Amino acid sequence: MPESGKSVLPAGTESHLRDLGIVLPKPPKPLGSYVEVSEAGHLLFLSGILPVVDGKLAVSGRLGESLSVEKGAEAARIAALNALAVAQEYLGDLTRLKKLAKLTVLMTTTEGFVEHAVVAEGASKLFVQLFGPETSSGHVRVVYGVQSMAIGAPVMVETVFEIE
Amino acid sequence: MPESGKSVLPAGTESHLRDLGIVLPKPPKPLGSYVEVSEAGHLLFLSGILPVVDGKLAVSGRLGESLSVEKGAEAARIAALNALAVAQEYLGDLTRLKKLAKLTVLMTTTEGFVEHAVVAEGASKLFVQLFGPETSSGHVRVVYGVQSMAIGAPVMVETVFEIE
Amino acid sequence: MPESGKSVLPAGTESHLRDLGIVLPKPPKPLGSYVEVSEAGHLLFLSGILPVVDGKLAVSGRLGESLSVEKGAEAARIAALNALAVAQEYLGDLTRLKKLAKLTVLMTTTEGFVEHAVVAEGASKLFVQLFGPETSSGHVRVVYGVQSMAIGAPVMVETVFEIE
Repeated sequence: MPESGKSVLPAGTESHLRDLGIVLPKPPKPLGSYVEVSEAGHLLFLSGILPVVDGKLAVSGRLGESLSVEKGAEAARIAALNALAVAQEYLGDLTRLKKLAKLTVLMTTTEGFVEHAVVAEGASKLFVQLFGPETSSGHVRVVYGVQSMAIGAPVMVETVFEIE
Repeated sequence: MPESGKSVLPAGTESHLRDLGIVLPKPPKPLGSYVEVSEAGHLLFLSGILPVVDGKLAVSGRLGESLSVEKGAEAARIAALNALAVAQEYLGDLTRLKKLAKLTVLMTTTEGFVEHAVVAEGASKLFVQLFGPETSSGHVRVVYGVQSMAIGAPVMVETVFEIE
Repeated sequence: MPESGKSVLPAGTESHLRDLGIVLPKPPKPLGSYVEVSEAGHLLFLSGILPVVDGKLAVSGRLGESLSVEKGAEAARIAALNALAVAQEYLGDLTRLKKLAKLTVLMTTTEGFVEHAVVAEGASKLFVQLFGPETSSGHVRVVYGVQSMAIGAPVMVETVFEIE
């Protein structure tokens, strides 16, 4: 390793991910007449991605009620890993990802729920691990609690990456 | 028609839309100090578009309660047609639209509603008909159930197009 | 002043803002592992910004219940001012902002609330004052009512600016 302590493995390659301890799952499939990735210029838009494993919800419930913030954060991390898997399937590997530009984390909650930031950290921490904590490499975040989501999902992660 | 079975009419012209059986309505007007279309580089952002016809809601109710998924899908299609009408009014015709990059379909639902994907298909199918089903021409989709929308609308369609 | 009635002060400078009567507050800080601004090509994405003043919510309550539309519009304006403050901190001044491309205003509401447009005007009017009312300089708007937001915020403003 160089003096900076950073890995010399090319960023976004499978070796680099393994080095970070990130194991990507099998990417989820669309639930209708759409695609999971849409490339437009220097941006890569991804569909809203749910915390599914092998096509089934890995976590369920409503935050503030039947789902703890810890489990919610785990769901956010699972959805974020799925998003990376979707990007990898589309791009071949993740080396073209310059950074995550924008992250939206939606969650089904009660009206009184206020701990959205703790849940969203499950996704943000994964992306910071991959792209770094600097101002230039960080992502903006939009987080809110919704009424309902497809198949009863408790969390959804929506991402817009900058590519090169 | 050429062997591929595809129309030889230039994509996005009025003749092409007629060939596909797509009739665009009169575009809706903003409800405040904003515009319906904002061009930024290679992207065309559109405002959230409601299922209005001649300025009035064509469909109302809440999914999971007073509105069926079939009626919800119809509302999504009406809003999507309105979005295309708004783009056409701004651009003159739709020939500069390269593809729909991202589609968001919001809907007012009960807490227990889970059939969002069926409702959203009302919009997605229209866009696939226009831009084709290929990976390169498909759109990503974000769908969720919200508490409430302006004028009591049951569905909103938000679009980001790639233009050339 | 020139015949057009427009200020000769360079747009987006502190003098221009003062001329418009716009006083920017201290920008809010992120609530987790993310940044408030992410630059990608010609777009500047901002995080969801809440109506906080000195780190505390300036307005609270739920629209349709414990919060009036007037107070909601005030909250939207405070959040919009915070967004401009965040952009100014990142860019040094606002002269690189070409326009606001897209504005999303989320608000916590009852199921029956329908006056979203009045609330959102609190943010839209500020941006129109700064960038002008023309079709080419206007912003698109997406507005809806959600279940809940971080720290119990009643309104959130999310912005995408075009920069040069």
